[in-house]
Amino acid sequence: MRAFTAAAVQIAPLPGPLTAASVAANCAKAVEWVERCVAATGAELVVLPESASTGFTPGVGPDELWDLVSGVPGPVTEPLQDVARRLGVHLVWGTYERGARRGTVHNSAVVIGPSGDVLGTYRKTHPFCTEMRSRGGWVEPGDEVVVVETDLGRLGVVICFDGDYPELARIQAVRGAEVIARPSALLRSADLWELTSRARAYDNHVFVVGANCTGTDPAGVLYFGNSLVVTPTAEVVARAASHECWVSARLDPERAMASLTPGSSVPHVFDHLADRNLDLLRRYADDLVRPAATSFPHAAPRPTDVVD
Amino acid sequence: MRAFTAAAVQIAPLPGPLTAASVAANCAKAVEWVERCVAATGAELVVLPESASTGFTPGVGPDELWDLVSGVPGPVTEPLQDVARRLGVHLVWGTYERGARRGTVHNSAVVIGPSGDVLGTYRKTHPFCTEMRSRGGWVEPGDEVVVVETDLGRLGVVICFDGDYPELARIQAVRGAEVIARPSALLRSADLWELTSRARAYDNHVFVVGANCTGTDPAGVLYFGNSLVVTPTAEVVARAASHECWVSARLDPERAMASLTPGSSVPHVFDHLADRNLDLLRRYADDLVRPAATSFPHAAPRPTDVVD
Amino acid sequence: MRAFTAAAVQIAPLPGPLTAASVAANCAKAVEWVERCVAATGAELVVLPESASTGFTPGVGPDELWDLVSGVPGPVTEPLQDVARRLGVHLVWGTYERGARRGTVHNSAVVIGPSGDVLGTYRKTHPFCTEMRSRGGWVEPGDEVVVVETDLGRLGVVICFDGDYPELARIQAVRGAEVIARPSALLRSADLWELTSRARAYDNHVFVVGANCTGTDPAGVLYFGNSLVVTPTAEVVARAASHECWVSARLDPERAMASLTPGSSVPHVFDHLADRNLDLLRRYADDLVRPAATSFPHAAPRPTDVVD
Amino acid sequence: MRAFTAAAVQIAPLPGPLTAASVAANCAKAVEWVERCVAATGAELVVLPESASTGFTPGVGPDELWDLVSGVPGPVTEPLQDVARRLGVHLVWGTYERGARRGTVHNSAVVIGPSGDVLGTYRKTHPFCTEMRSRGGWVEPGDEVVVVETDLGRLGVVICFDGDYPELARIQAVRGAEVIARPSALLRSADLWELTSRARAYDNHVFVVGANCTGTDPAGVLYFGNSLVVTPTAEVVARAASHECWVSARLDPERAMASLTPGSSVPHVFDHLADRNLDLLRRYADDLVRPAATSFPHAAPRPTDVVD
Repeated sequence: MRAFTAAAVQIAPLPGPLTAASVAANCAKAVEWVERCVAATGAELVVLPESASTGFTPGVGPDELWDLVSGVPGPVTEPLQDVARRLGVHLVWGTYERGARRGTVHNSAVVIGPSGDVLGTYRKTHPFCTEMRSRGGWVEPGDEVVVVETDLGRLGVVICFDGDYPELARIQAVRGAEVIARPSALLRSADLWELTSRARAYDNHVFVVGANCTGTDPAGVLYFGNSLVVTPTAEVVARAASHECWVSARLDPERAMASLTPGSSVPHVFDHLADRNLDLLRRYADDLVRPAATSFPHAAPRPTDVVD
Repeated sequence: MRAFTAAAVQIAPLPGPLTAASVAANCAKAVEWVERCVAATGAELVVLPESASTGFTPGVGPDELWDLVSGVPGPVTEPLQDVARRLGVHLVWGTYERGARRGTVHNSAVVIGPSGDVLGTYRKTHPFCTEMRSRGGWVEPGDEVVVVETDLGRLGVVICFDGDYPELARIQAVRGAEVIARPSALLRSADLWELTSRARAYDNHVFVVGANCTGTDPAGVLYFGNSLVVTPTAEVVARAASHECWVSARLDPERAMASLTPGSSVPHVFDHLADRNLDLLRRYADDLVRPAATSFPHAAPRPTDVVD
Repeated sequence: MRAFTAAAVQIAPLPGPLTAASVAANCAKAVEWVERCVAATGAELVVLPESASTGFTPGVGPDELWDLVSGVPGPVTEPLQDVARRLGVHLVWGTYERGARRGTVHNSAVVIGPSGDVLGTYRKTHPFCTEMRSRGGWVEPGDEVVVVETDLGRLGVVICFDGDYPELARIQAVRGAEVIARPSALLRSADLWELTSRARAYDNHVFVVGANCTGTDPAGVLYFGNSLVVTPTAEVVARAASHECWVSARLDPERAMASLTPGSSVPHVFDHLADRNLDLLRRYADDLVRPAATSFPHAAPRPTDVVD
Repeated sequence: MRAFTAAAVQIAPLPGPLTAASVAANCAKAVEWVERCVAATGAELVVLPESASTGFTPGVGPDELWDLVSGVPGPVTEPLQDVARRLGVHLVWGTYERGARRGTVHNSAVVIGPSGDVLGTYRKTHPFCTEMRSRGGWVEPGDEVVVVETDLGRLGVVICFDGDYPELARIQAVRGAEVIARPSALLRSADLWELTSRARAYDNHVFVVGANCTGTDPAGVLYFGNSLVVTPTAEVVARAASHECWVSARLDPERAMASLTPGSSVPHVFDHLADRNLDLLRRYADDLVRPAATSFPHAAPRPTDVVD
């Protein structure tokens, strides 16, 4: 990885019922924000929120959603590919994606390179319970981890609730990720957004660039922004309020693990990746892949409970 | 799990060179603190710091340390077993433990039941780099996960730097842990202590009872206390300063996951254990057990850098 | 003060241009939320957000706003007075208030008692720069501190940006406030919302009940919720996400300052009010009331910059 | 103010009973740490902990303490004056100071310029209750606010528990302080240390450089370090663990208030100093200087309760 400036752009989707026109307008709005952000910050990587072409809760069923979006690449990514090419920057763009047949929709984050090409498409592997088509929602989970080699460094991607799952970020880090983008439309507290973003960064010594939605989606669900950038030693170096805005920070590999804590004279001598006890993990590998559930009583999800 | 009061007792080891007398005195001091804590709080589970019979950095080599401690059960646990029996409480007690042959020392946390019996012995599986005998230190890592069925609930154990490794707490949670004790002698910032303790609690929806050392160990290394209790939704409900003291909190399974955030009317509908994407984890299981390292430059550990 | 349950209700104003009908609908919506909250929690004090009858940025000038709201008591408070009487609870209700002549509007928080009577009306004394009529906005600042004696305890009120000013909360605490309500429509980060709410609670050893707006106001400005309840030792005991919801907590005077830190065996022996150095304050009292400004360059406020 | 690097050095006093030799050794140790810190960081301002020449709890009465220390300037400051002159840096040095007659001791922070001259001596105006000679302790409170004009900028000073009192930092800011040094031997949680340091920085838009003691003092009281540097918008940009170490950060007036939150595109348009409601403060000025006390029950301080 080389030093570069990364930004998280946090924007609101258009309110009101989702239409082909509002999808196009959401894409156009994102393009405009990317242009302004890059002009102001010189960012070479810009991360946008989850499902930014539509808003998270589409207010329509999976068939109608499938009709409104497109495959990748396609109309839901082309305006972003254009702006990436025009500005010579990398983008991580959150959009619903048409799957193989009508009604199969993925919640995807598309990594676009400075050539405008799609370098990788990550499909959310941990949709929230109410988001899952199998549980009354509209999304089919993905089954692939994506880490993209770019000329900035190696870039991994998780989407919102995915960031609660330490195994996913770990797999990406083992596969070389140095920066993890987290496009989000998170619906818990800002405290939990910060906690999980910092934890994933520190667990794996990666930068996390978290772009969280703001405003209201087509179904009237409310978002809180507070996008952030976290370093490999868990320091929050950029943080938004709830306005439509961007935040940016310089990501410098030389300084990433220079000291135990920010600005300290005590060196950082350990490595959370290298210092894993692999013998232990091999011995208990089965536990990492077998079903389990909390014993603590909690509510059953209903389709109307939407929490990212 | 049933509702009960848990406490973390944070005490300082005797300063000065380690002797048989100071080991005995550290044990006796712990007993006295347990008695006072239980009398005042009614705690049924008391967690003590890591290596509390000696202090973390023993200031002697592995052979001498082996001579000064004992097997488990043995003199380094018997005073604690006595007090557990006398008071009818559960203890998690951090002590170095004699291994099979001279020079083989484990950094152990011993779970003692209200009968005074040792219910389980967990040996730190992620000793800090400078602590490892293989890298110039004094400890052999353990290779077993411990989750103990008690009449309070199922109790897992991690020790200090172990708490940085999400896989370990995950394995314990999959094996049923509802409370994870974290005896510690942590030497990073209080901010990172809180971050990692909260992350492990939230990753797995478990209570974390973290007892961190305070004072100075035989080698002159300094500790900061700030012991804490965290709920399954990541709320810190008890927190110490740096004094010798205890902190306690009521752990109530009925309230553990009653709401999305503390005191909220929004229910908690998801389960980090049940909602893992097991297909994905199986597909990438090899990544979870293969070597990796950060690409970010950092200092090499030297025997004199002690940061557990 | 006696022990009781307090709640913060966080709701979104109706979007779209402000009309007499939307003001009435916002009031009716608040009533409904109060009913549901009290039924579910038994709260005896419910705090609602700032300017909840309209939304913070009204999108109209001071004359039009004056026309749309009313004096206090009046149509903008009566529905809340009714529900307070019906349920026998205390409310703190944020609403713009008609002043003496057309165009004079105050940003007020009305304390309503279980009889339905208005026990006090606090007018925001620190409107945000862009909110001030004298600087292009629509609000005239108040000039009175309000602390109301109720049968729950003594209740002070600050509104949003007021909470950044330690002197105001101090004056209220000196005048006996035990709980400070902070109706808000804050537009900075959740981190700063928490920082200032915790600081005011701890500075003065008071409970702070902060109800922050969510959603979008008539001018399209976005809010983030994250309402909270803080204890006199700065512990956050309730915390919302960004949904429309409530959070509640038990406020217990016996436990408020029982220990130095939450759950600790170390007693709380100091009192930030009693331990002020009054001789010093008298000597430098002039400095507390004379003009000053930061030397650090920052942007000039423009009417279009709205930050609470 | 111009841009410069500031550092907080956190060191432990010599343990054991206080003697003339240990006072001299503590001073010599501080000098050595200043030398190493300045060589490594280029810091032009170095802040050291409270009472660093002795440790906070001296373990002797006020008469004996008076005998062991000196006036300022004098033997307790001269080694530091020498090193400041030799390196051409500014220091803030915490030391007990001989008052006018035997038994009169102040808890002082001495600002030393690059010429080696004492530029100002601040005497703690809010000693902790158990520290006060009038309540069984050993310190006479000061009655003067100190803001020193230096060629780095205007430098204010508060000592430890002083930082809990917003009026004191406010008075300093009104008198022009741009950086407030907070030498400390704080004995509450790291969470409260961070809260009060951030609050004072944000209340007044000043940098706070907090150097907190670590280790054990002559009376056996334990400290936790976690020194920090905070910006005028409340961002923690440097943070220590509990080791003896330093932390440093660049303080840049141009960036101090460049954005509403770190790295954000939203400008910072308000000024907590300029935007105070002075009419209100004048009206209620009497409340700011009259006695008050919390109504919440709490422990009475005893001489043996030491909680700085």
